[in-house]
Amino acid sequence: MGFTVTEFEKGRPVFEGEPGRFVYNPIGSVHGGWYATMLDSALGCAIHTALPAGKIYTTVDLNITFLRPLTEQSGSVQREGKVIHFGGSIATAEGRIAGKDGTLYATGITTCLVMTPR
Amino acid sequence: MGFTVTEFEKGRPVFEGEPGRFVYNPIGSVHGGWYATMLDSALGCAIHTALPAGKIYTTVDLNITFLRPLTEQSGSVQREGKVIHFGGSIATAEGRIAGKDGTLYATGITTCLVMTPR
Amino acid sequence: MGFTVTEFEKGRPVFEGEPGRFVYNPIGSVHGGWYATMLDSALGCAIHTALPAGKIYTTVDLNITFLRPLTEQSGSVQREGKVIHFGGSIATAEGRIAGKDGTLYATGITTCLVMTPR
Amino acid sequence: MGFTVTEFEKGRPVFEGEPGRFVYNPIGSVHGGWYATMLDSALGCAIHTALPAGKIYTTVDLNITFLRPLTEQSGSVQREGKVIHFGGSIATAEGRIAGKDGTLYATGITTCLVMTPR
Repeated sequence: MGFTVTEFEKGRPVFEGEPGRFVYNPIGSVHGGWYATMLDSALGCAIHTALPAGKIYTTVDLNITFLRPLTEQSGSVQREGKVIHFGGSIATAEGRIAGKDGTLYATGITTCLVMTPR
Repeated sequence: MGFTVTEFEKGRPVFEGEPGRFVYNPIGSVHGGWYATMLDSALGCAIHTALPAGKIYTTVDLNITFLRPLTEQSGSVQREGKVIHFGGSIATAEGRIAGKDGTLYATGITTCLVMTPR
Repeated sequence: MGFTVTEFEKGRPVFEGEPGRFVYNPIGSVHGGWYATMLDSALGCAIHTALPAGKIYTTVDLNITFLRPLTEQSGSVQREGKVIHFGGSIATAEGRIAGKDGTLYATGITTCLVMTPR
Repeated sequence: MGFTVTEFEKGRPVFEGEPGRFVYNPIGSVHGGWYATMLDSALGCAIHTALPAGKIYTTVDLNITFLRPLTEQSGSVQREGKVIHFGGSIATAEGRIAGKDGTLYATGITTCLVMTPR
């Protein structure tokens, strides 16, 4: 989907890319599923980078708040994930999609279950 | 993404399709973004079918609860959206992704803002 | 808070009660915290009734969608919780607050972590 | 419930207080409804302080992520709300409950509908 990693530190990856007309919904702006996919990836990646050796995770829920419509005119946007809590069984990450000028397009929060593979 | 409408009544569309390996995440099952895209479409479509003439809507938020992993072996799944409240300014729809045997893979709820176009 | 259990089966308790002026917010209707407390109890109770022997749980998240304002005039309302999935580590319940005539005031969904006490 | 305002600026109130045994749930820690009530107040208050003259608001949804159990031993906690977007019809605020040492107990996000009273 044309995104590349632009910054990286443990528990806080930043990706950058540009939504195009190919991810439009039938009512003329970027599909909510695009926001969700972008945030799910950023949040999951944040969790992944903070995962202790020998552990795996699965997403339990994802909440997305859409703040402004993204269009072809929005230009390049960044999406960032940040781990806010990493417990023994549950890890939580927050993220956002924002323009280079700081305009906020969406925020998201995810809860993941951390497991030891059998 | 290989989904087709299988049932349809005002405020409650049902779609059916099959997730494949092309929507896998790097950790070996269907990407959370796929669930989100499927539910966002089903929920938005439910709202759309209940929209009065001359009104438009935009999604305000989307919450997804992942219940079971979907894999290539899951076979065909249905996703359904249902309007649970349609007020003057806010419309709310619930939805789910389920197998043909009733196995529940995910549930979602969305809130939309209903507007009169300027 | 004046609620009593009116129906009960494993994984689906129903409570009934009446919100009064003592739970009003400063802007003239029932405080969102009241809805949340009512739903958290109903959902937690639903999980509790479905908990296997020797297990405990803790709430991971709670999402509430407010559909209509509750006031003194709303009369008695029911709140119901229903387990929709009970896995090895995660249990999920949905619930709603509704009037006796079926008017829906709020819906909620909760995710709980199921654990073996140490 | 024993909370007082400790800081205040437009769109970002901070409250401070101490949860006690009187808000315990039957399973031995602070009731999820307490977190929800605290966050709903802080978030609603944040929206309220940013509301233009002549407008009113109502809460559309509230999502709470519980990160750590609060007990009598937790001591005084702060809850903070912060407006992250204020549009023509929808306002969004994020908040958190944290200890004085920065320990995060819960985060929340709320969406409100902003209206002109009839």
